[in-house]
Amino acid sequence: MKNYYVVKSRRLRSTPYTSRIEKQGVTGYTVYNHMLLPAAFGSIEDSYHHLKKHVQVWDVAGERQVEIHGKDAAKLVQLMTCRDLSKSKIGRCYYCPIIDDNGGMINDPVILKLDENRWWISIADSDVILFAKGLAIGKKFDVKIFEPSVDILAVQGPKSFKLMEKIFGKKIIEMKFFGFDYYEFGGKKHLIARSGWSKQGGYEIYVENKESGLDLYDELFKIGEEFSVKPGCPNIIERIESGLLSYANDIDNTDNPFECGLERYVSLDTNIDFNGKEKLIEVKQKGISRKLMGVMIDTKEINVSKSIDIFNDKNLKIGELRSGVYSPHFQKVIGIAMMNKPHWEVSQMFKISINDSIFEGKVCDLPFI
Amino acid sequence: MKNYYVVKSRRLRSTPYTSRIEKQGVTGYTVYNHMLLPAAFGSIEDSYHHLKKHVQVWDVAGERQVEIHGKDAAKLVQLMTCRDLSKSKIGRCYYCPIIDDNGGMINDPVILKLDENRWWISIADSDVILFAKGLAIGKKFDVKIFEPSVDILAVQGPKSFKLMEKIFGKKIIEMKFFGFDYYEFGGKKHLIARSGWSKQGGYEIYVENKESGLDLYDELFKIGEEFSVKPGCPNIIERIESGLLSYANDIDNTDNPFECGLERYVSLDTNIDFNGKEKLIEVKQKGISRKLMGVMIDTKEINVSKSIDIFNDKNLKIGELRSGVYSPHFQKVIGIAMMNKPHWEVSQMFKISINDSIFEGKVCDLPFI
Repeated sequence: MKNYYVVKSRRLRSTPYTSRIEKQGVTGYTVYNHMLLPAAFGSIEDSYHHLKKHVQVWDVAGERQVEIHGKDAAKLVQLMTCRDLSKSKIGRCYYCPIIDDNGGMINDPVILKLDENRWWISIADSDVILFAKGLAIGKKFDVKIFEPSVDILAVQGPKSFKLMEKIFGKKIIEMKFFGFDYYEFGGKKHLIARSGWSKQGGYEIYVENKESGLDLYDELFKIGEEFSVKPGCPNIIERIESGLLSYANDIDNTDNPFECGLERYVSLDTNIDFNGKEKLIEVKQKGISRKLMGVMIDTKEINVSKSIDIFNDKNLKIGELRSGVYSPHFQKVIGIAMMNKPHWEVSQMFKISINDSIFEGKVCDLPFI
Repeated sequence: MKNYYVVKSRRLRSTPYTSRIEKQGVTGYTVYNHMLLPAAFGSIEDSYHHLKKHVQVWDVAGERQVEIHGKDAAKLVQLMTCRDLSKSKIGRCYYCPIIDDNGGMINDPVILKLDENRWWISIADSDVILFAKGLAIGKKFDVKIFEPSVDILAVQGPKSFKLMEKIFGKKIIEMKFFGFDYYEFGGKKHLIARSGWSKQGGYEIYVENKESGLDLYDELFKIGEEFSVKPGCPNIIERIESGLLSYANDIDNTDNPFECGLERYVSLDTNIDFNGKEKLIEVKQKGISRKLMGVMIDTKEINVSKSIDIFNDKNLKIGELRSGVYSPHFQKVIGIAMMNKPHWEVSQMFKISINDSIFEGKVCDLPFI
């Protein structure tokens, strides 16, 4: 496949770490929330093996924050998500589908409760800030909504715990998954969550002080040497094997959370008020007609740059592949597909055309590993 | 400057024309409204000279439409913009700043009035659809809001008129600037506006029927041969010379329309109700403290991937460069800068550091040509 270069401009925002990763050998970018997100440091497969064994530092500043602040903050945040946040706690992260009035997915952020009246929505790639502003204006809510200066560094991989312990002390490895707290580095406080877009374990550092963040970046590489640290980025092989969904790749605004396998985050049996609640009640009663599933395909190469139709042996379209990659673990292509009822059952066989050749595949559960 | 490749995925949407432009020699992309927008076909300077002399066909499908449809459509559209649309006409395009409740710019689309209750907002790079949805939910407006399947082809350059006349007949060259109408090609109707993101003249074809659009694409190149047609894309040299502002490059959400030189689109003396009206009245009364201006810099090369500070001879920051490029016409770098009061006057001299060297520049009016 031919490569095309990114034409840079101020509109595709750099991050505080861009100049560092460019010295360290980043080769490819994607664009995420109008920002450069590294997407390759040479071979994706080498990076996958390294991530599963050692530790990586990722520039994921593209995961922008929407800060909601003020008297009506909790009300606005709850209005945007179908997940019941009434019992949410300060110091915890919550994975929350953001829903429009049709029950369609707008984003799937992690929401951090900083205080009763102060929240960060750590967003996937869509301008949730504009949805929040529209709602707040329309509802006359007493809130401030803005994008704070926060540039996340993720530290991911099995050795991330040892590395972070060396820098921040023992307390950080006692923090529970999806907890967050403040930790000191060089006299500055950093909000650090035990989270990240891999299943290899690790942390996300919500850097507010750029200067201290750059010092920390350098320190992670210095101290990380003994743990074979490398620069990295979200890895498509690892994230598909782990069943981590990617908004706008696997999920889009035409999908509802039930179709995306997110029913455990849909709270319909409570008194809470959120956008699209009636629609989702209707969807639940009627049942869904398609569902995100894993797929395995008997081939060794694929590049998914748009949906690829999936057919049964009668040449009837029964689904569409939305993400896919060669998995060294399974030695075949694995992917995430929206499968139509009743063809979504595990072991359903199908056909798919890739570069003008027909391959066989079958449906399986998520995650793969 | 080193190049980095775009890592493609479904999230960076292809357009119906992507496979065609990749055969025709596109070399670089940017990402615009979550879609691949061609940004280079080899040399930007060669393309600039060609655009000013001949005719080009551009895949600008990234200019997505937000359709607002229904009883309250006009009310919602008006609420989003500070431009008075009460006397707007069906069949006309309107350049409209979209404003939040702080008076900050959210986007600067062209709005097409298709019918009293049906509008297209032809957007720059931000998810205006989410702002519209939030407002409509909050205000309980009776509207449908969605992204229709529209993939714009622009035909730009002085010979665009001859080319379009050959395909669509004499009527199309009589259409006034920012008018639109429906024209037939191969039995299908296409909405065509006399508009486009260059000052070289031309049209934008709002392709709704993909198949017919691809036939039309091929026809434009076939018939265009005698006019030296080439594939192209918005050209940074031409657009800066022409003073065409680029949202998120030159303008962002921290700017109000007065600072962006858009006061002629701000209607404060009417009864219309729009977001941020009070703030803009306040801004007008107080006056602004910075303004977008043209700048010329005594050097031959620049790559602006983020704001670059501008200083006076006392090393005081007096502005920031937001876009810039070498202009073959002026034989120096030209750009667009946000200049602080009182240093925004034409002929104000300044200093700027580019790749560790200091260059001199001066402020000038927009457009350059």
